[in-house]
Amino acid sequence: MLVVMQAHATEQQVEAVCEAITNLGLRPHSLPGAQRTAIGITGNAGAIEPGALEDLPGVAEVIPVSKPYKLVSREMKAENTIISFPGSPATIGGKTLAMIAGPCAIESREQAFRIAEHVANSGAQFFRGGAFKPRTSPYAFQGLGEEGLRIMAEIRDRFGLRIVTEALDTESLALVEEYADMIQIGARNMQNFSLLRAAGRSRKPILLKRGIAATLDEFLMAAEYVMSEGNYQVVLCERGIRTFTDHTRNTLDLSVVPAAQRLSHLPILVDPSHGTGKRNKVIPLARAAVAVGADGLMIEVHHQPEKALSDGMQSIYPAQLMQGFEQLRRIAVVLGRSMPEPAGVPHLREVASR
Amino acid sequence: MLVVMQAHATEQQVEAVCEAITNLGLRPHSLPGAQRTAIGITGNAGAIEPGALEDLPGVAEVIPVSKPYKLVSREMKAENTIISFPGSPATIGGKTLAMIAGPCAIESREQAFRIAEHVANSGAQFFRGGAFKPRTSPYAFQGLGEEGLRIMAEIRDRFGLRIVTEALDTESLALVEEYADMIQIGARNMQNFSLLRAAGRSRKPILLKRGIAATLDEFLMAAEYVMSEGNYQVVLCERGIRTFTDHTRNTLDLSVVPAAQRLSHLPILVDPSHGTGKRNKVIPLARAAVAVGADGLMIEVHHQPEKALSDGMQSIYPAQLMQGFEQLRRIAVVLGRSMPEPAGVPHLREVASR
Amino acid sequence: MLVVMQAHATEQQVEAVCEAITNLGLRPHSLPGAQRTAIGITGNAGAIEPGALEDLPGVAEVIPVSKPYKLVSREMKAENTIISFPGSPATIGGKTLAMIAGPCAIESREQAFRIAEHVANSGAQFFRGGAFKPRTSPYAFQGLGEEGLRIMAEIRDRFGLRIVTEALDTESLALVEEYADMIQIGARNMQNFSLLRAAGRSRKPILLKRGIAATLDEFLMAAEYVMSEGNYQVVLCERGIRTFTDHTRNTLDLSVVPAAQRLSHLPILVDPSHGTGKRNKVIPLARAAVAVGADGLMIEVHHQPEKALSDGMQSIYPAQLMQGFEQLRRIAVVLGRSMPEPAGVPHLREVASR
Amino acid sequence: MLVVMQAHATEQQVEAVCEAITNLGLRPHSLPGAQRTAIGITGNAGAIEPGALEDLPGVAEVIPVSKPYKLVSREMKAENTIISFPGSPATIGGKTLAMIAGPCAIESREQAFRIAEHVANSGAQFFRGGAFKPRTSPYAFQGLGEEGLRIMAEIRDRFGLRIVTEALDTESLALVEEYADMIQIGARNMQNFSLLRAAGRSRKPILLKRGIAATLDEFLMAAEYVMSEGNYQVVLCERGIRTFTDHTRNTLDLSVVPAAQRLSHLPILVDPSHGTGKRNKVIPLARAAVAVGADGLMIEVHHQPEKALSDGMQSIYPAQLMQGFEQLRRIAVVLGRSMPEPAGVPHLREVASR
Repeated sequence: MLVVMQAHATEQQVEAVCEAITNLGLRPHSLPGAQRTAIGITGNAGAIEPGALEDLPGVAEVIPVSKPYKLVSREMKAENTIISFPGSPATIGGKTLAMIAGPCAIESREQAFRIAEHVANSGAQFFRGGAFKPRTSPYAFQGLGEEGLRIMAEIRDRFGLRIVTEALDTESLALVEEYADMIQIGARNMQNFSLLRAAGRSRKPILLKRGIAATLDEFLMAAEYVMSEGNYQVVLCERGIRTFTDHTRNTLDLSVVPAAQRLSHLPILVDPSHGTGKRNKVIPLARAAVAVGADGLMIEVHHQPEKALSDGMQSIYPAQLMQGFEQLRRIAVVLGRSMPEPAGVPHLREVASR
Repeated sequence: MLVVMQAHATEQQVEAVCEAITNLGLRPHSLPGAQRTAIGITGNAGAIEPGALEDLPGVAEVIPVSKPYKLVSREMKAENTIISFPGSPATIGGKTLAMIAGPCAIESREQAFRIAEHVANSGAQFFRGGAFKPRTSPYAFQGLGEEGLRIMAEIRDRFGLRIVTEALDTESLALVEEYADMIQIGARNMQNFSLLRAAGRSRKPILLKRGIAATLDEFLMAAEYVMSEGNYQVVLCERGIRTFTDHTRNTLDLSVVPAAQRLSHLPILVDPSHGTGKRNKVIPLARAAVAVGADGLMIEVHHQPEKALSDGMQSIYPAQLMQGFEQLRRIAVVLGRSMPEPAGVPHLREVASR
Repeated sequence: MLVVMQAHATEQQVEAVCEAITNLGLRPHSLPGAQRTAIGITGNAGAIEPGALEDLPGVAEVIPVSKPYKLVSREMKAENTIISFPGSPATIGGKTLAMIAGPCAIESREQAFRIAEHVANSGAQFFRGGAFKPRTSPYAFQGLGEEGLRIMAEIRDRFGLRIVTEALDTESLALVEEYADMIQIGARNMQNFSLLRAAGRSRKPILLKRGIAATLDEFLMAAEYVMSEGNYQVVLCERGIRTFTDHTRNTLDLSVVPAAQRLSHLPILVDPSHGTGKRNKVIPLARAAVAVGADGLMIEVHHQPEKALSDGMQSIYPAQLMQGFEQLRRIAVVLGRSMPEPAGVPHLREVASR
Repeated sequence: MLVVMQAHATEQQVEAVCEAITNLGLRPHSLPGAQRTAIGITGNAGAIEPGALEDLPGVAEVIPVSKPYKLVSREMKAENTIISFPGSPATIGGKTLAMIAGPCAIESREQAFRIAEHVANSGAQFFRGGAFKPRTSPYAFQGLGEEGLRIMAEIRDRFGLRIVTEALDTESLALVEEYADMIQIGARNMQNFSLLRAAGRSRKPILLKRGIAATLDEFLMAAEYVMSEGNYQVVLCERGIRTFTDHTRNTLDLSVVPAAQRLSHLPILVDPSHGTGKRNKVIPLARAAVAVGADGLMIEVHHQPEKALSDGMQSIYPAQLMQGFEQLRRIAVVLGRSMPEPAGVPHLREVASR
């Protein structure tokens, strides 16, 4: 915290501010300059509330300084966090990119299996699908619930894909934890602190999506909530922020990838499907996400997007996934990274030979 | 939904789009124009997903039209909703403005009573205070929990003020419902659909705060979630949106007040404390909120804001509350509304004479 | 400028940063804290560019501190600037609110006179009208040019109203200066620095509208541009900022009024017409603007808005202006301010008796 | 334009709206639906102003439909515009990416030549440098003016690089046109319509940067202004938009690249320097820009960024440029495009052999 005094502030006013800081149990450091005096504050464990400092006589401005996060910070842990999944060669945060694909929502066993086969063939290591759907309208399709989870568990058995699905509340969290390999906390719940704490008590990795109006600090603080409860397996995911633009549903903020990687050791993925909301923008932005240095992608795919019960506009066709992955693989190499090969990959063959 | 065709689209392309619409179980209405053809879609119960329409040959654009909300809509119910509170003359949505004041968080019995006395003297009908606090940092003060609720219940008994406090999750909702007169759903939970549904099953009025990046449609849809479960007592509350500006913590969007009142019969309050985040802006924006036509205000007040455990920067002093209310009263009259008188008001005297 | 070091930064790294600062001709002030060291920088005349500091080993963050504006600052000049107009009792920035009204564009002599009569009757002291119109489309009506200016000069003579109109470039600025009493610089030109400098060499007061994405600092710096050339008669005008919302054309940021008044001695008006873009929101937001403490308003009015050549959607009817002003007058009184009375006011009678 | 009626609107109200539309000289198309009636409007040459329609009895909403741009539109011209430069193999919009690099500002002949040598060696075909600088503060370095232009002309002669530099106003435009190969219109001037028109009368290609709060439609309309005056050589450039985020100076909106390419035949470049404002983000976002499909890049480079007179924070070192280009070349190939080779490339050798 830094208090900037007005140019004409008197010595008495500077002293009064220092005294107020001391009374808060903190340490003031007066810093006289050519034009004005600034007063630094130390001694605070985390972020402090500036309280009445701003309204003291002679004060021009109060500027917060210390970052409030700890466990997520690269200062705390310099090397990248790599998350692994029991019984699978898949990792997130390592040299190989993590590719998650699947439909927005699980609509039926047949639909899910149809799409999962394409996903497995593409080389993706993870299958996504919503069983509990957060919908803007209470009258929209809300997901199949536990039935959807069961279908996804079958898909893991059949295709060797690891399962990622969203928990909407502490009730569904317990169910999701039982069936899934990674638990998604959606953008709308990024500051649902009760849910974050519950996720922190889970033993499964957490995929934390950035809120549509979350700053990077708030995003990292949400991860800190999870970690502060003891679950250190957190994967960040950029999925577009809300801006004034109207040519896409959200504005994909790719600069947050290197920014998060600089501040934190946690892996960060990009979701170009929600990030654009338009099918014809998904693969171009997926390429950009790999090129910017993301640790992986999350993509919505549907074999009949025009009949999808949700997010059909942004789901790509299986053929687009296959072709897109070809381009992504070649871009990954430029960054010294790799992407799993399509079909016939070890984990698939293994499953097939059982 | 409206499909706008490209200028050079062929008749075959127009027909193909119409057929695709029919296949979705909807009705296409072709609308040839001088430059291009547009195709209207009807027959949808609520909002529909445009699916693959946008990518059909010849399509320039797909534009959503129908509003998806029903119960919140003024088309559904023309007259204003007025919410009343058993055993109190206080209402929200009627001619008299609803004034809610109190500290950000209940910190202790003494602190709460000190402030409540000022609140009661000011003429406000409602006391606010946080028992369960949503904090960006897991290391910040999280509220007193049920102990805080008990203190507020005592305040109701002592001062006759109705109690408003936030529920963070379905667990705290049950507790809050037991103690409070109105249950607040915070901005960060505006799209916590599980919590909204639970609130919809409550018998107490719900104060629903607008999310910092919520459009008016999303805000009304969140209210629709509550109402769709049978609880029609919903009060909207504007509390600032996130924008690029940095001179206030949020940007208070006062235009949403007449906009919401035009579309919906629900009352709408304004919270200038969170809406600005700066003590010296609270009363000016409170005046503006009454002048724009809000049905009431929610204001944070603290007798020692510099020592407040949260939001001290935006809490006003009790003296500011008293003086501010004087101005607000006179502005209310200009709009044909009234505000409760300070001290000695009937419900206070009643309590005092018990 | 403040350099925040990483928690684990070495003493050598701190020293290296201090040396780099010294090499820039500035003074470093090392400020060791419990967790980390911060280094304050002084000696800079204005704002400085942080250059390579951020990338030096051990640096966590670089935070700018000093405000770069001088002449606009209240630190420079404590008392409010009041602008007066030769031959008229009208002022801007004083106790009496400045009311500017008129059509978006001057379309014809008849249209302008029709509206001007209503404006004069309302009690407004200023008539606005566009002769040079900034239009998003090159094919839209661009204004009558000098013919429009001549019509407005006649209106001044006939009704005693002072004339406000926009200059789009240095060419039109010379013309506008000749005919008008106050020269408007539009929102799109707020950072057209050539035009600002030219305005600074004018002898007429400048009405400077805030850019739709301008921070308060940038807004004040634009005024500083004008003042730095010697023209100290600058009037600020908030007219809505661009945000994610869609229920209004822009989001009127009323909090900028007290914020600007705190930092600067310049008067600030509000334009609720552009600020909302919707006729039915203009008067409610006008009331809010007076209530928040604005020094006046700028409102678009048209006797046949449905036939207006531009901005018809946001122009109010003359009857709305009259009724609205009645409410505004009563709100102004609550803030210890006044508004000119309708019709029969001194300056009108004077003109009439000539 | 589409008028959506309220659910309970009467037939008389629908007819009255249709009549109002007819009175505006347009054609109404009534479109009755299950829940409500919509009325399409055709017959308008360009965009029309909805005027008073929104306030007619029974009207729920008015929705604009037609896109107002023509010459920039891909409907008008299906094939990509490719811009060539006399005496140089460089093009913009073709298979080979256009690479523009150089300092923010020309500070001296020595500085400019030093940097230009690095730029030429990197393989970039264009040299950028500011002679007239738009600065937020009137007290900041404003550029060398014509002297800067002369230095750049020498650089063209010496290194064979084509020159890109900004014109701030119609005065500097004439000078810039004389010396430069492509004229930049900066983000702050994107809606300086007088300047756009003047640029439209120039014979040199125009590099049009997107305004920080410009929608894609407004961006394209600005290009339409230039083209409507007869200059069809327009290059679009995304350079970051203003959002709520604070980890970068602006938010680079890469989705605008495929979106613009879908709607328009004009080439579009990306400026990751202004788009991020941070040196360590420039190359990652440059990679992403090539991967998303941009037609080229504009990058700020400086041999001593810590001493740069402007934008030092975002200028990369020459070595970063060389290494970055290596990565970009390999990504370009994945998209079926190419990038000029470093040093010893034809156009350089040609110059050298003169």
